[in-house]
Amino acid sequence: MNASRPDAVQAGAEAIARCRRLLEPALREAVSVLHPSGARMAGFALGWSDVDGRPFAGDGGKHLRPAIAMLSAEAVGAPPESALPGAVAVELVHAFSLVHDDIMDLDERRRHRQTLWRAYGAGPALLAGDAMLALAVDRLAGTGVPMAYLSRALVELVQGQTLDLAFENRPWSGPGEVTVQEYEEMAAGKTGSLLGAAAATGVALGGAPELAERAWEMGREFGVAFQIYDDILGIWGDPAITGKPVHGDLRRGKKTLPIIAALSAGGTAARELAVVVGAAATDEEAVRQAARLVEEAGGRQAALDLSARRARGAMKMMAEFLPGDTALRDVCGALIDRIR
Amino acid sequence: MNASRPDAVQAGAEAIARCRRLLEPALREAVSVLHPSGARMAGFALGWSDVDGRPFAGDGGKHLRPAIAMLSAEAVGAPPESALPGAVAVELVHAFSLVHDDIMDLDERRRHRQTLWRAYGAGPALLAGDAMLALAVDRLAGTGVPMAYLSRALVELVQGQTLDLAFENRPWSGPGEVTVQEYEEMAAGKTGSLLGAAAATGVALGGAPELAERAWEMGREFGVAFQIYDDILGIWGDPAITGKPVHGDLRRGKKTLPIIAALSAGGTAARELAVVVGAAATDEEAVRQAARLVEEAGGRQAALDLSARRARGAMKMMAEFLPGDTALRDVCGALIDRIR
Repeated sequence: MNASRPDAVQAGAEAIARCRRLLEPALREAVSVLHPSGARMAGFALGWSDVDGRPFAGDGGKHLRPAIAMLSAEAVGAPPESALPGAVAVELVHAFSLVHDDIMDLDERRRHRQTLWRAYGAGPALLAGDAMLALAVDRLAGTGVPMAYLSRALVELVQGQTLDLAFENRPWSGPGEVTVQEYEEMAAGKTGSLLGAAAATGVALGGAPELAERAWEMGREFGVAFQIYDDILGIWGDPAITGKPVHGDLRRGKKTLPIIAALSAGGTAARELAVVVGAAATDEEAVRQAARLVEEAGGRQAALDLSARRARGAMKMMAEFLPGDTALRDVCGALIDRIR
Repeated sequence: MNASRPDAVQAGAEAIARCRRLLEPALREAVSVLHPSGARMAGFALGWSDVDGRPFAGDGGKHLRPAIAMLSAEAVGAPPESALPGAVAVELVHAFSLVHDDIMDLDERRRHRQTLWRAYGAGPALLAGDAMLALAVDRLAGTGVPMAYLSRALVELVQGQTLDLAFENRPWSGPGEVTVQEYEEMAAGKTGSLLGAAAATGVALGGAPELAERAWEMGREFGVAFQIYDDILGIWGDPAITGKPVHGDLRRGKKTLPIIAALSAGGTAARELAVVVGAAATDEEAVRQAARLVEEAGGRQAALDLSARRARGAMKMMAEFLPGDTALRDVCGALIDRIR
């Protein structure tokens, strides 16, 4: 199934660029109320300034969540600007979650730069994360339905993070191993919830709150698809594009879907993989071997299949409640076409 | 001026105990949605379980903020239970802020126990703080006015924390020194905002949203008074009561009001104090000497006077918009009577 129109990739890229131009001034305005030190750190985390507060033109992230919020409003017939408070809120929550994640995981690099805590210290970074979360809530506090979905996403987000953290103490295989179902629950919280909130706040701010619940479900479905795809990139992605080290997730012993699926597949490669990851070696050879065994045991293909299935499910939902050729469909379709 | 009725201390203590009995089941219910590991950490932070999740009957804090929320509802003629969502929310935000504060300050002890990060690790504690904040927002997300005040408090809270953190890099005296006015701005954010939100959500949930703004102002005024009083306890408080080490704030070089006031007082003691704190010695003798010089330069008295003045201001506001003998007045009056 080809999810998108022939010119969808180009149309999707243009729609994202258009949303980004609307977003940036609103995001800057939201952050401007902070104390200068907090504003500088937020500017670094949101990608428009370097560590000294000077303009930075590098990779500030895709801004996918705010685009989904604005294009969801557009899909229900409203101007994309009507969803700006929601777009700003979800981008701030996304940035908050990355900043706190990097502190928890002690990750030192993100988007080809230092992480916020490496650049400014863990205490200030923790607080800057809190500040971005507070500003996000403040952006929607006066709204009814949009605030309800943002809040739901926050609770699910921390639940997903907690599950992810709890996975670290679980065995790789045997009794107590992490199942694909548990992984999907974690991904729905960690990644799905905020994409759900983006779509739900978008349609609600666009004047169609009655579609918010279905938009929420659709966004969560996309989120699971994207998280699984991100897991694939976390093992086999090109560092020049991802901005993260090759085989990074394997080296850190993260229980991502390709490995979970590979370990549960049975067979020689799965059993060998269990021995390799169980030994927790982080040298280059062991990590390369693990990546090969995950692939051999079918983990990569299983992840691709599951990601594509969840993405198609989301596109089907969208077709039902937001029929027609919308920029939202182009953007999501183009993203899905990458999963192969 | 004696702020309270003759039997106010007893009546205030009873009112706090009554609110606490209402609060605990609601707080437990809010936390019960968390993943077991998050719930265990929240139970530790909120004071009802020990590090292994077993019941803990020790000092779980005064629960002053939720009491103010519930008694504010009562003061406008509603049952105190009507303010429970606000009471739960402000207590959760308070707990969140202490958990993140202790991580930032690397504090190891609170309320005669380990701090959360010491007990469970910094990463899990950071996330448990985020979870409590998410639950707090979720508790009020469906409300209009109460949510608006909670959100305002969150933004002011992180601003206050940011100022407090920025004070650490400022000189003790001379150009760039922290002024009493800057301190008051920090305290209004760090402590005042959440007491403001407690009172504002209380009257709003109690059916008098038109009083919310005045309740917010009153609560903030109290908050500044309490923060200054807390600063006094942070230097001269009895560790058996405060649960913190004696002279703790002096040893850590915190720029609290007694020191700021002492340094700006002029005279021999102030000049000597500037030399002592400038040397940043943390040995027992230096710290004892600093405490003596703060007192000699009039810092302790200035702090008491300022705290009492702000508290009287708050009581005056309360008398204007919530006249009569209310339990709220008893509680606040009794707290103020301690400031002497």
